[in-house]
Amino acid sequence: MSELTLSIDAMGGDAAPDVVLDGIQQFSEEGKDTRFLLHGRQAELEEGITARGLSAICEVCDQPEVVAMNAKPSSALRKAKGTSMWSMIEAVKDGRAAAGVSAGNTGALMAMSMLALRKMEGVHRPAMTAVWPTLEGRCVVLDVGANLDADAEQLIEFAVMGESYARAVFGKERPTVGLLNIGAEEEKGPDAIRLAGEILRNRDLGIDFRGYVEGNDISMGAVDVVVTDGFTGNVALKTAEGTARLVSTYVRQALTASPLSKMGALLAGPGLKDLRKKMNPSSVNGGVLLGLNGVVVKSHGGADADGYATAIRLAANLAHSNYMQEVATGLVRVSKQGIGSESVDG
Amino acid sequence: MSELTLSIDAMGGDAAPDVVLDGIQQFSEEGKDTRFLLHGRQAELEEGITARGLSAICEVCDQPEVVAMNAKPSSALRKAKGTSMWSMIEAVKDGRAAAGVSAGNTGALMAMSMLALRKMEGVHRPAMTAVWPTLEGRCVVLDVGANLDADAEQLIEFAVMGESYARAVFGKERPTVGLLNIGAEEEKGPDAIRLAGEILRNRDLGIDFRGYVEGNDISMGAVDVVVTDGFTGNVALKTAEGTARLVSTYVRQALTASPLSKMGALLAGPGLKDLRKKMNPSSVNGGVLLGLNGVVVKSHGGADADGYATAIRLAANLAHSNYMQEVATGLVRVSKQGIGSESVDG
Repeated sequence: MSELTLSIDAMGGDAAPDVVLDGIQQFSEEGKDTRFLLHGRQAELEEGITARGLSAICEVCDQPEVVAMNAKPSSALRKAKGTSMWSMIEAVKDGRAAAGVSAGNTGALMAMSMLALRKMEGVHRPAMTAVWPTLEGRCVVLDVGANLDADAEQLIEFAVMGESYARAVFGKERPTVGLLNIGAEEEKGPDAIRLAGEILRNRDLGIDFRGYVEGNDISMGAVDVVVTDGFTGNVALKTAEGTARLVSTYVRQALTASPLSKMGALLAGPGLKDLRKKMNPSSVNGGVLLGLNGVVVKSHGGADADGYATAIRLAANLAHSNYMQEVATGLVRVSKQGIGSESVDG
Repeated sequence: MSELTLSIDAMGGDAAPDVVLDGIQQFSEEGKDTRFLLHGRQAELEEGITARGLSAICEVCDQPEVVAMNAKPSSALRKAKGTSMWSMIEAVKDGRAAAGVSAGNTGALMAMSMLALRKMEGVHRPAMTAVWPTLEGRCVVLDVGANLDADAEQLIEFAVMGESYARAVFGKERPTVGLLNIGAEEEKGPDAIRLAGEILRNRDLGIDFRGYVEGNDISMGAVDVVVTDGFTGNVALKTAEGTARLVSTYVRQALTASPLSKMGALLAGPGLKDLRKKMNPSSVNGGVLLGLNGVVVKSHGGADADGYATAIRLAANLAHSNYMQEVATGLVRVSKQGIGSESVDG
């Protein structure tokens, strides 16, 4: 791989800039030939960079302001100038960096990215991704909250973007795609989903469409790409997080219930360590607002260094891929099929 | 408690009638003074009843037909007469039984119940419930699939019905209610949810409304009643099932990874047994289509005897409660507030 420059919002996230710098250090130890453009308060950053021996690969772009984690997107937009987040995005826009990462305020990041990078030609609405652990490995779910709803045409665009994304990030030649619904039969579900399903089944969009999937199919790894509207995707993602937390609590209780249980847990140590690793949200950290002229990865605000390194890896993989070109080609294919002026019955 | 008669679709479910009879036996061993009206093939049933010593509390209503598990609701409706399911519902309608249970085809059961029992006055759309295990115990989520969507008025009706249901089933004096959304702030989410939220916050409906809850709040037990539309609720429920299954698989793998792990699991035995009990879907089996003139409980088709007994217990609790009266009173309160002709901005 050729040298890559990534743009980093060094001030975004609950424990910035320390966790950000730790994440960069961890990623750089993997031996990737990557340089970083760090946006934030120079005085605060230089010390940490030097202490971690990262001076050779990090350049600081001094920005005095930080977007508050609880700021409303509209207010953040008005005061964007001079913030580390805005500066990070501008570097992606100008081509000084191939992709960007921020662990800051999600709403602000989406709004600023939309404004600065603008939508790709042919995209009606960008969609936010989430990588999801499954029995088979990982899948990507989109949209998980960039929009409140989606019509059939938008769902198809999500399918095109998600398929290219899965190829870039999971390295699968031909990712499988499913539409999230409440039954497997063709006649089930709301109009928009049925129409999108009909088109994905019958038109040549170059997508390996596997039909409808239900909520339980996501974690089972039934498909590589799960397409849904932003409201449903957001609820599903958070419901899964809550359930995983509940079950983890049960397991912890079971393994500390008595002295014997505790001794058992000690013996089962290596297996349980593996379990903790699998359950660690760091391994799937990083969402991307797909459909813009540029790649910006959103890291979880509370991600640790492992998690931040995962988000950087995601940005690097996307930057090295043909994701943007593929999406452009896919969307041309969609528009050639004249999709967008149909009804379920028509 | 006075003597109760429950109506049972003895032929519905993957392992009917054996599991049904085992469930009845298990429930009756709890010492409840309950009689059962069993609908199904007399010849098949009598033997099992006698073998389990249930003759004194079971009466059979001979019905030759069984609704196929994969029959479409419309087709099942046309051929309802003579089926064990239809006969079970008719006994509830006629007042020969205080409530009914079936582990048969869900779509057919909903369609037949709607047709035979009809909607309560003031209810626009019935809603299907699911009991959900939480860190705090249990909560009820509705609608989980009776409808595809819900407007503000319907969401409020779901809140009224769910609140009474939680009181009847969980025995809580004043259950708390939340609206499922994708953020906690009042201005978040689709129009229908924002309008419903505004009304539940500001009008005196006698409901302890706690505002919006997000997907992760369900399993955390943030509220006793989670109100949502049928599409979202169904996706959330199945997503949680899939996630729980994924995590359970991880745990099993961790505890059988090596001979030491296995020994550890052996030592932790009692705690793990507790875990299996908590993760056992039998403990939360049973959904109810709320808003009809009569109570019919849907057991999972694959429920075991434990699970079937749980569904019977649910039917008995509802039959003993003031649930129907309370819902009627609640809906009058809603209609007095003139809800149903408003917009978010109006």
